[in-house]
Amino acid sequence: MIKTEEKTTVKKIENGTIVTPKGFLAAGVHAGLRYEKKDVGAIVSVQPSSCAAVYTQSSFQAAPLHVTKESIAAEQKLQGIIVNSACANACTGEQGLKDAYEMRTLFAEKFQLEPHYVAVASTGVIGELLNMDKIRKGIQNLKPGNDQSAAEEFQTAILTTDTVMKTACYETVIDGKTITVGGAAKGSGMIHPNMATMLGFVTTDAAIDSNVLQEALRSITNKTFNQITVDGDTSTNDMVIVMANGMAENAPLTPSHPQWFQFYEALKLTCEDLAKQIARDGEGATKLIEVQVNGAKTKEDANKIAKQIVGSNLVKTAVYGADANWGRIIGAIGYSGVEVNPDKVDVSMGEINMLKNSQPQAFDEEAAKTYLQQSQIVITVQLYEGKENGVAWGCDLTYDYVKINASYRT
Amino acid sequence: MIKTEEKTTVKKIENGTIVTPKGFLAAGVHAGLRYEKKDVGAIVSVQPSSCAAVYTQSSFQAAPLHVTKESIAAEQKLQGIIVNSACANACTGEQGLKDAYEMRTLFAEKFQLEPHYVAVASTGVIGELLNMDKIRKGIQNLKPGNDQSAAEEFQTAILTTDTVMKTACYETVIDGKTITVGGAAKGSGMIHPNMATMLGFVTTDAAIDSNVLQEALRSITNKTFNQITVDGDTSTNDMVIVMANGMAENAPLTPSHPQWFQFYEALKLTCEDLAKQIARDGEGATKLIEVQVNGAKTKEDANKIAKQIVGSNLVKTAVYGADANWGRIIGAIGYSGVEVNPDKVDVSMGEINMLKNSQPQAFDEEAAKTYLQQSQIVITVQLYEGKENGVAWGCDLTYDYVKINASYRT
Repeated sequence: MIKTEEKTTVKKIENGTIVTPKGFLAAGVHAGLRYEKKDVGAIVSVQPSSCAAVYTQSSFQAAPLHVTKESIAAEQKLQGIIVNSACANACTGEQGLKDAYEMRTLFAEKFQLEPHYVAVASTGVIGELLNMDKIRKGIQNLKPGNDQSAAEEFQTAILTTDTVMKTACYETVIDGKTITVGGAAKGSGMIHPNMATMLGFVTTDAAIDSNVLQEALRSITNKTFNQITVDGDTSTNDMVIVMANGMAENAPLTPSHPQWFQFYEALKLTCEDLAKQIARDGEGATKLIEVQVNGAKTKEDANKIAKQIVGSNLVKTAVYGADANWGRIIGAIGYSGVEVNPDKVDVSMGEINMLKNSQPQAFDEEAAKTYLQQSQIVITVQLYEGKENGVAWGCDLTYDYVKINASYRT
Repeated sequence: MIKTEEKTTVKKIENGTIVTPKGFLAAGVHAGLRYEKKDVGAIVSVQPSSCAAVYTQSSFQAAPLHVTKESIAAEQKLQGIIVNSACANACTGEQGLKDAYEMRTLFAEKFQLEPHYVAVASTGVIGELLNMDKIRKGIQNLKPGNDQSAAEEFQTAILTTDTVMKTACYETVIDGKTITVGGAAKGSGMIHPNMATMLGFVTTDAAIDSNVLQEALRSITNKTFNQITVDGDTSTNDMVIVMANGMAENAPLTPSHPQWFQFYEALKLTCEDLAKQIARDGEGATKLIEVQVNGAKTKEDANKIAKQIVGSNLVKTAVYGADANWGRIIGAIGYSGVEVNPDKVDVSMGEINMLKNSQPQAFDEEAAKTYLQQSQIVITVQLYEGKENGVAWGCDLTYDYVKINASYRT
């Protein structure tokens, strides 16, 4: 997928973060919700920003999502985001909603923002109330900065069972102005987004209207965050927010702009990069699995099959064990709900073709084992039904996934 | 669910098997497809029987399913079933189909049956051809009997990663005649039936027309085999077959018979019993999980939510770890695709209420832990949306599931 980077003039910024775009600051502190890890983070823009957001499709949307939706509905502008980890503030009734509003108010007061310019996000255990004393102190201690360490403080504060920080940054030149897109994300378990993923925060200095940004985010989310799965479980708190503060001083971007695709691509690559980082860091994972499905009738079919394969516990355990058990891939295609011609399917792992026109191919088991021992596995399926392609990302299923999840709360 | 047994006059026969109904024989031999376990089994009726069957909804239905469908289509009668384990004969192209037909012919010749009275079933690795030399010898060595040991030989021959045999038997008296229903099944991984489950074989001496039997089986499958899940993966080979040879000499049963419900219940209890045995013996499982969903708008909604909860990797690992993490149950309800009122849900584990009207309840964590350490866990959800109920069964997700599946072929 990264090939598009070369076709367009979108450049990856190594070590770039959410504060690389002009006019954004970040912070993260240890408020004490967790034993020692940072647990409250914030992003602030120097001026109100256009914004876009996508949310979990769960019926049980957590309290912070209600507050964030209300904030955005007011003017479709955001200037700050306050996030806590350790407690999801989900299934917490009226008190939970009150607490989420209080987080918004405290943060707005601290940084002298309009409350409806503030988004709230939480992640962690469901069904427990926030310790508001700790949240209050945490917010008071936030000291936003625009350097690498400030970004890392934020990136750390939003993590739960994640083992690494997730960040990505891309830039492109439009109308002679350098436009930068930066992102941070968290997510490791309960990852099977239907609409957005766990928590994703994207900043950009592009000038763009909120409505246009929202359209772009929705389209990109379907190709990136919605195409990853760790365990098939969708959270109550998933949310992706983009803020665009316009400080790059380009003419406002719309799809009719001749360089629109560059912006779209920079935003997409940022989201895809974060999505893959989340998949690779799936709970207990040792490998990133990418599934390419080609030759489908529709893009939806291709994406659906790709996600079904990468979500199969049997495929995931086979990859963990470096066992080239392609029958499980066929199994997953078979129950994806998409009609395919069962007599005309190719399956490959890496460069090794295992099934051609649904006929098993002789292949070198040792070479396959060696391939499957790598840290990034690509499975390719050709359906010969049409011209549409799709891709999905996931990870292997390991002993450590079970270990982590058998005792998450304790 | 077993309470219905008392309301009706359906009796469980302890140690009953597929040969308990009159006129059925069984056999199992070691043909050498596996290193030492029996791997070819057969059921024979002394006379042609009415029959019914349900099959996997996978697009990649294995060769034996094609042959079995063709057999049944001819006259809707069966007299024998030949089964092998170790090799699924799926994704094996024309040679695979030829082999499945040959299994049918060899078996028909050996027992002097019409070929179209023979069903064929296979289970095991996908994408490998049957070793027909071994199958031929195995069929020649079959010596059907109608005692416990003959039934156990069959029950063993059909297993793959299963750790125990699955059998069930119920009887009822209709029109003064004792009618017996016996069943055997296999299934441990790749269990998430859409239509039938792994392999299930049910015998009965009831007199009943094939069409009526088919309707009953379809209805019962939706409430039993289709409501279990081990790992969310649906096989290419799932099949449930019922043979009814009429030797009980009752007047043919139809839904308008005053005692129809007794037969339906005996068949349902046999299927439910087998389904629960499969769930309990899920790969690596240590616990049977039953999820009851009450107060749904429709039966479909209730079943869908129940299956979503019992299929959640996060719920399964929490049960394994005896962690009363009810938030994951809420998570699963939330993404089930069924609209529920998020402010009015109760969740209990055993007798311990954890959520009431979506408000977390204080409960004794130690008591919950003790409850979750039992070998059978019941999770109950009340939605207050309507009057329909549903139930699903599954198992916990453990280190051993990963271990078994990381190296199945090797």
